[in-house]
This record gives sequence, structure tokens and C-alpha cells, in this order.
Amino acid sequence: MTSEEKYRVAVIGGTGPQGKGLGYRFARGGHDVVLGSRAAEKAEGIAAEVRDHLGGTTGAGPVGSVSGASNADAVAQCDVVLLAVPYDGHDELVASLPLAGKTVISCVNPLAFDKRGAHGRVINGGEGSAAESAQELAPEATVVGAFHNVSAVGLWEEPGFLDEDVIVVGDVVGAKQVAMALAASVTGRVGIDGGKLRLARQLEPFTAVLISINRKYKVHSGLRITGLGEPH
Amino acid sequence: MTSEEKYRVAVIGGTGPQGKGLGYRFARGGHDVVLGSRAAEKAEGIAAEVRDHLGGTTGAGPVGSVSGASNADAVAQCDVVLLAVPYDGHDELVASLPLAGKTVISCVNPLAFDKRGAHGRVINGGEGSAAESAQELAPEATVVGAFHNVSAVGLWEEPGFLDEDVIVVGDVVGAKQVAMALAASVTGRVGIDGGKLRLARQLEPFTAVLISINRKYKVHSGLRITGLGEPH
Repeated sequence: MTSEEKYRVAVIGGTGPQGKGLGYRFARGGHDVVLGSRAAEKAEGIAAEVRDHLGGTTGAGPVGSVSGASNADAVAQCDVVLLAVPYDGHDELVASLPLAGKTVISCVNPLAFDKRGAHGRVINGGEGSAAESAQELAPEATVVGAFHNVSAVGLWEEPGFLDEDVIVVGDVVGAKQVAMALAASVTGRVGIDGGKLRLARQLEPFTAVLISINRKYKVHSGLRITGLGEPH
Repeated sequence: MTSEEKYRVAVIGGTGPQGKGLGYRFARGGHDVVLGSRAAEKAEGIAAEVRDHLGGTTGAGPVGSVSGASNADAVAQCDVVLLAVPYDGHDELVASLPLAGKTVISCVNPLAFDKRGAHGRVINGGEGSAAESAQELAPEATVVGAFHNVSAVGLWEEPGFLDEDVIVVGDVVGAKQVAMALAASVTGRVGIDGGKLRLARQLEPFTAVLISINRKYKVHSGLRITGLGEPH
């Protein structure tokens, strides 16, 4: 099941593995993608790499365009913005972007690593998340959380759709529906409405569990929600 | 895949839906179960109900025994203890039980509910979980976290194995292996080693996301880990 509507998506952090991989999948699903980076030239180089990678795909329809720009220029060109940046520096970057009026999708995972492995970072005394921070820093944007748990390796290397689900959380249904539709480019199914934005507190650090499983079992694990039937 | 080893499991909170449902599944998997409650008579009544329910099953082998006892007596009779109690009152109850030397499995979900739905409660400023609290309160026990996300309705009503995964976290491999083996009674597969005990901070409140999905889609959702192959 794919959505008919095509979006133009700015990917902030588009030169990192998660941003590059999601941008690749969105373009493969027919959406236009503008990869953003601090340096426009670097974004343009990665965009060329994504276009090359798309050249080898046999999608159901035409692929979308992929270009590169500075982060601010990428946002200015798009109605939908994916935040795919590391949590370090996240707040300053979000505050610097012209996000008013945009649908903003955060896949940011605030994780910490030590000798015992990955674990969630505590945001706002346990009552916050990267997605909620973005909403506070960009109050005129509409922020949703999604795509937290998809593996960058799978996005780039797996030839077909990923065998997992994208859970979307947010307080505005229309904005959630954008992320749910984009999810079909990744999994072949619309995303799952997981509830309110504050549940990003649960989705973001769950990635630490998947990282732990990956290390233990030498796999690229994903998350699937059972019991919904097909198609949900 | 089922484990050969059979355990004797005390289910604290064995008269609640989660404890009753897990006790039913463990007995169906051939393990002996002692349901615990504050009042032994109440536990004995629920044990009779579970035995009746088991009478209708056609398992691969003989089912285990099911009896009822006071919480403390149930613990005294068993090497493995499942904590299936509400979070309210959890700490006082755990501190009161003779848990030294036991393998303790916590499926306790510290959740809160308001008009926006379910969400995770903040334990120890975001750096704690019910399972970690239990370990602190019973330092001579070995605590693991597991079975957080399985639906009580599915445990009791679904005729076959549940189409989901049990993720087990803990700091002692041998104790995790007990919970992983017991998981086969629920899902037909051993549980998944999800890492260290502190990751219970992620597993416990994830149940709020599943509750949110259940309300939205009118389903009993579960969690499955993809990418592990079969059998994992």
C-alpha cells in the first residue's frame, strides 16, 4: 500500500547514514528530496551518490528528484522537514532553522554509550524527548516523531521494503498522516499511529534495545507491531 | 522451539489478569506454577480457574501443576518468581518478600493514564525502572525484566502461541536464560536477549505505545523483533 500524494522533503542531516538512507527511500517512493547539510557542496555530493544508487532501482513508478543544499535552503524549499541529526547540537540546530509552518518529522534518538552498551539519555528529567524539544524550539512548526528504529544499513542496502513498522507519534493528525504516508516508501505499508507526541519518550530510546540485540545476535533488527491485520 | 527444563514459578500478583494469564501459559508449557496473592484463599480460587482453563488445552506434553498460596508462601516454594503486580505498592511488596537467592522476573509496567492516554511514569528521575527498583530492594535476588508487552487478553483467550516476541533484559546471563526459556510457553520461541537490566527503562513504558495503538485500531497489538531469522 502506497500513498498517492507526493511530498517534497528536506532531510536535515541528509549526509549522515540515517538521513541519506531515508532520503534514498523517499525518492524511490516518488517523493522529491532535498538533502541538507551545513555545507551545500557536501550535500550536493551525497545527493549525487543517492541519485546513482536510485539508478539501479526498479520502482513501481518514477523516482523523485534528489538535490543538495544548505540546511536552511533545504528547509526553505520544502513543506516537510525530516530531522535526522545527532542529538548533540540538535537543539541549537533546530532553533536556527526557518521551521515555522512546516511539518517536521523527528527521527532523532538521544542515546548514550558506555562499556555496558547503548541506553537512552534522560531528557528534561525523564519528561521529555528530542521530538518534544524540537516542538518547543519551533512552536510554529508541527512536530511528529517517526522512523526512529529503522536501520541505516537496511535503508541503503536491502533491495526490497524493510520488514518492520514505522510508528508515528504526534499531537496533530494531519502531520502524522504525512509521516505515515512517507513510511510506505520504507516498509511498503503506511506507518502506524502510535499516539501522542510525548510517547516519543518511549520510541526514541527503544533504539538502544535494538542496538543491544544487534550486537548480541550480529543482525540488523527491526520492530514490527503484530495484531493489526493486513493492511492496517 | 521449547526448552526441556521445567521450572517451578511463583507468580506474585497471580490473581491479576497478567499474572493469571502468564501462569496459565507457563503451566501449559509444562512448568509448575504457584499463584500468589495477599490472601491464600483468593489465590486458590484463581488456581482452580486456571486448572479448568488448562483442561481444555491440547498441549504437546503434560501440563504443569497450578496451586495457590499467599505471596510469601508462593515464593518459599519456588526458585523462580514472577512479579506481576501493579506499580502502585510495588516497592513495599517487593521489600516484604523472601526473595534472597531467587531468580526474579519483573513484568511490571509503571504507567500513568490521563485524558491524553497512557504514558510512562518517571522512575528515579528517568534513570530507573520497576525492575531496577526490585533489584535494589532485593539485592540478594537476581532480577531480570521480561513479559512487559504481552497482552493479558491474548494470554488467556488466544488458542495458540502469541505472534509476538518476549524481550528479556538483565545483568546475569543465567537468570535471563530462565526467562528466555519460559517465554517459549507464550510465543513458541525462546525469548530474545535484549541487553542489560537498565534497558527495562525502555521496555516497561513501551507498553504505553501498545496501549495507544490498541485504542486507536481496536486491536490487541504486540511487539515482534524482525531480522533475527528463525529460530533465533
